[in-house]
Amino acid sequence: MWPVGCTTGDPVGLHRVLEPLGVLPQAAERLDTDPVLRDDEVRVRVERLSLDAASFRQLEGKHCGDGDAVRREVLETVGRRGKMHNPVTGSGGMLVGTVEEVGESSPLGLAVGDRIATLVSLTLTPLVIEDGLAGWDGRSEQVPADGYAILFGRSIAARLPEDLSAPLALAVMDVCGAPALVERHVRRYADPVVVVIGGAGKSGSLCLAAARRAGAGRTIAVVPHRAEADLLGGTGPGHGLTDHVLVCDARDPVALRDGVAAAGGPADLTIVCVDVPGCEGGAILATAEGGTVIFFSMATSFSAAALGAEGLAADVTMIIGNGYVPGHADLALEIVRTDPAVRALFDRRQLDG
Amino acid sequence: MWPVGCTTGDPVGLHRVLEPLGVLPQAAERLDTDPVLRDDEVRVRVERLSLDAASFRQLEGKHCGDGDAVRREVLETVGRRGKMHNPVTGSGGMLVGTVEEVGESSPLGLAVGDRIATLVSLTLTPLVIEDGLAGWDGRSEQVPADGYAILFGRSIAARLPEDLSAPLALAVMDVCGAPALVERHVRRYADPVVVVIGGAGKSGSLCLAAARRAGAGRTIAVVPHRAEADLLGGTGPGHGLTDHVLVCDARDPVALRDGVAAAGGPADLTIVCVDVPGCEGGAILATAEGGTVIFFSMATSFSAAALGAEGLAADVTMIIGNGYVPGHADLALEIVRTDPAVRALFDRRQLDG
Repeated sequence: MWPVGCTTGDPVGLHRVLEPLGVLPQAAERLDTDPVLRDDEVRVRVERLSLDAASFRQLEGKHCGDGDAVRREVLETVGRRGKMHNPVTGSGGMLVGTVEEVGESSPLGLAVGDRIATLVSLTLTPLVIEDGLAGWDGRSEQVPADGYAILFGRSIAARLPEDLSAPLALAVMDVCGAPALVERHVRRYADPVVVVIGGAGKSGSLCLAAARRAGAGRTIAVVPHRAEADLLGGTGPGHGLTDHVLVCDARDPVALRDGVAAAGGPADLTIVCVDVPGCEGGAILATAEGGTVIFFSMATSFSAAALGAEGLAADVTMIIGNGYVPGHADLALEIVRTDPAVRALFDRRQLDG
Repeated sequence: MWPVGCTTGDPVGLHRVLEPLGVLPQAAERLDTDPVLRDDEVRVRVERLSLDAASFRQLEGKHCGDGDAVRREVLETVGRRGKMHNPVTGSGGMLVGTVEEVGESSPLGLAVGDRIATLVSLTLTPLVIEDGLAGWDGRSEQVPADGYAILFGRSIAARLPEDLSAPLALAVMDVCGAPALVERHVRRYADPVVVVIGGAGKSGSLCLAAARRAGAGRTIAVVPHRAEADLLGGTGPGHGLTDHVLVCDARDPVALRDGVAAAGGPADLTIVCVDVPGCEGGAILATAEGGTVIFFSMATSFSAAALGAEGLAADVTMIIGNGYVPGHADLALEIVRTDPAVRALFDRRQLDG
């Protein structure tokens, strides 16, 4: 048997999987949280968890907003699984912390004392919480926490930038895969019409900015009600971010199709950034033949999308939003630094908690 | 109020949705199965249902193979929902029947007496079963049935070809979206390595043939055990269909990655055609940076795919397999007519039941 701590781990963390054996950490029921590192691992002292929005919403709903019960369930999940992996939504979140120890062959380029955010999901990150989450009221997806987490050889982590506050940087990096993927797909069309469902939100506002930078001919932000529209309107913080704001319930496919058409659609590219179920049909119907839909929402149903497009005889390409695109964190941070509307929307949401 | 039978329906069938109102038929809990047609509808006398494989497997497993219980549950589902929509898997299947009545403004080009297969899912097709499924033992996904179904203006149906038997044509059309989409994506790469997980199956064999026709540089079929490998091997019916056969459990991501690498991988394009859960990680790991994974399996988990790719820092494009691509039925039937290996595999599976 290899002495623990003296060997190199598997780059994707297979050596940390306790059950079922042979699956990847993300698919595992339970991970090994031993604080002793393999040569290529990094241990991080955790400062804050940022729960995935769909996960937090599920917990909040299940417990009718009882923060103590939400906290107990998060502690129970992390204790049982060795990771914050919501079994209902299948999603996790990310964390911020400080590098505590670096294995001698870690390829991540981190040093002890670096303040970082993880850009891989909490669903595959070994995690131990040591403070009982005493500083968290269970009422927000931002979770102050003390404990530690383990990064593998192939994990992705980014140093927190010095010119942005930690909560802001964390909020940006949490959704940084979206604008990078949008940029790539916008470039496949000439002057495309880009529809962003949830355009006033964090990932949505970054996607709108990325779409314009990448050459979108027209952008349409879809928001669920007037208050969100005001964020993007004449005197709102996000004024100027999009060519058009459409107030529409994205779960109503016909209303969405008709609203987008009236606003200059159909879309060549539709981006789904809202964490509510049932948006698949509307996104497909609002998109032109030959167009593309990118689903970033963890509330997306694979079968609803696949069968929905087939049932509508819609020749659209449907993409599962991959949270990793090379350079994604740098691009998103760059947008927040240089686009005043995006920055203002993020600042506004930070204030709201 | 408009007199029923004298008006044109909504092309995607919204007028048939009973609850919840406003959603598309696929998302509906219950559809209106009134046999009286709108002007643009078609009524089909049903002869046979072909249940989605994932749906049938779930029913079989739930009832421990008790065919009577499976039949009762299918009857109960169709009676309650007005469509064969498995609430657990979210999937349906397709049907074969004969056109019974055609609304005067139907755009489908069908005539009374045409023998057709529906190419839209049963999850959105109003359906009434009138014979209690008396001719079905509940032990096969092929369900002899008498009753009727309704097609909308934008439904897709194909006349059964005269040179192929009905069961064979149905089996081909059931999976005809897959080869058409594969053909399109293979063309985006130069001499790509194409891996088909489930390569000896119906959609898998069509995908292998489509990949080669579209210019794949190398094809690798992944099968779960020796018996499937023999179907594609030296003396098997599918001999010659693929460049390499790899026996591997696709739910074991590391084994799949290593096996594909040894067989000439990694893949530029990986196609998932097996209806078992847990293949997301392996498909991602077996695919090269910049490559594409297409998921056709209804057992695919959206969050497992999205978070899995992020967790592996894998820059792969992940596509939700859309069952509709223009010309899909013609392409698949053409492959079966002209590729002796594909034809032999289909004939073999028909014999197996």
